[in-house]
Amino acid sequence: MPDRKGLTFIIGGARSGKSAHAETLVTAAPAPWTYIATAEAYDQEMRERIALHRSRRGEGWATMDAPLDLAGALAALPDGQPVLVDCLTLWLTNHMLAENDVEAECLRLTDVLSRPRGPWFVVSNEVGQGIVPDNALARRFRDAAGRLNQQVAAIADTVLLMVAGLPLKVK
Amino acid sequence: MPDRKGLTFIIGGARSGKSAHAETLVTAAPAPWTYIATAEAYDQEMRERIALHRSRRGEGWATMDAPLDLAGALAALPDGQPVLVDCLTLWLTNHMLAENDVEAECLRLTDVLSRPRGPWFVVSNEVGQGIVPDNALARRFRDAAGRLNQQVAAIADTVLLMVAGLPLKVK
Amino acid sequence: MPDRKGLTFIIGGARSGKSAHAETLVTAAPAPWTYIATAEAYDQEMRERIALHRSRRGEGWATMDAPLDLAGALAALPDGQPVLVDCLTLWLTNHMLAENDVEAECLRLTDVLSRPRGPWFVVSNEVGQGIVPDNALARRFRDAAGRLNQQVAAIADTVLLMVAGLPLKVK
Repeated sequence: MPDRKGLTFIIGGARSGKSAHAETLVTAAPAPWTYIATAEAYDQEMRERIALHRSRRGEGWATMDAPLDLAGALAALPDGQPVLVDCLTLWLTNHMLAENDVEAECLRLTDVLSRPRGPWFVVSNEVGQGIVPDNALARRFRDAAGRLNQQVAAIADTVLLMVAGLPLKVK
Repeated sequence: MPDRKGLTFIIGGARSGKSAHAETLVTAAPAPWTYIATAEAYDQEMRERIALHRSRRGEGWATMDAPLDLAGALAALPDGQPVLVDCLTLWLTNHMLAENDVEAECLRLTDVLSRPRGPWFVVSNEVGQGIVPDNALARRFRDAAGRLNQQVAAIADTVLLMVAGLPLKVK
Repeated sequence: MPDRKGLTFIIGGARSGKSAHAETLVTAAPAPWTYIATAEAYDQEMRERIALHRSRRGEGWATMDAPLDLAGALAALPDGQPVLVDCLTLWLTNHMLAENDVEAECLRLTDVLSRPRGPWFVVSNEVGQGIVPDNALARRFRDAAGRLNQQVAAIADTVLLMVAGLPLKVK
């Protein structure tokens, strides 16, 4: 029922096929589809990743950039609009680098996500299954990302864990 | 059947909701509940984490510290006692830092865990799904943690993998 | 049906019991079994890991080394031969260190794997669920490993995620 209102949360490691799978799910609803990009192109490596993702998506997609005000971007969407948010981890990174109030921002975001007004798909990274990072900033980021992932999973209708490109249903 | 004898093993990444989920499971059995903490407060960051976990638990909990002699602490419990051990990864860290015989200690622990005398819940971290760590100590720790997790999962009645706060049944 | 033709892909973190579980699956088919090792013993730590794996396997196993030409080794096998490839991550590492054309090599390999001529079992590591690594080579490796894992999972008949020594069926 991809054209119904509802929140689907897609979590996985790096290169686990999260974005590609999310695109498949979104495009099962009728076009047009909105892609909300949270990435900011700080360097060449990031610019290449963004270009690669963009080139994979074809006709029927409108792209919006929301590196910080993701809640606002979602709130401004028309009812019934199929949306892919890619991804929460970069959005969180942007807020941490900007030294914003991360807890307040997460609350604002999950408030909007808890009332999806169309088939909404949100992608995020699992970053907590490695060794404890050496530096304190990475540990703070890992904690904040884990908490945000829990909050979004709690309000999502469907949660998928991506493993080597394949979805494993968690909820 | 949370008041029956049995071992439940809850594994997951950092901030995956392991402790909170384990507390929910333990408190489905009648109080009093025993919380066995393995953490040692080496620094301020750790002290804050311990305080946060402690404040989340409310009435009905007795807390025991067992940074090293976890097998002894478990053996000393009365029959039928609901217990939460949080967590194996820190217990292992303590033994490695103390340069104890890790293999022997794991054997002692799993021997006690293989005969649960109440509803016992044990929490541990998945630390092996990142890039191979640079330093040899982290690799040794990762190996030892993975082996211990396998040993405990093998004797557990139930094994849950936590993903963004949600349990995925593995066994 | 372990003696039928088919590709089983076993993915998991470090010390998640991938190799041991794969050996159990392979040896459910009649001997002789072929173990294709991709590891190169660069240092003492690696030599010890290889020796440990080798000592665990007993009678009935033939070992082949294929640190680079894994496609060739598989193509040279007789029909119906039960095979364990351990593991793709080290094979990929070898090609990256040799500065070979990784994309072309992955294509050659997946081409052979897409037509298994016996019960073939392939082991690989999940390396993408930790914090983004500091150095660019580790990030490139993580990307390449994730892509290869997706390609192999896509053509596999069965995909298992190992968690603390236990298999979780993904496909």
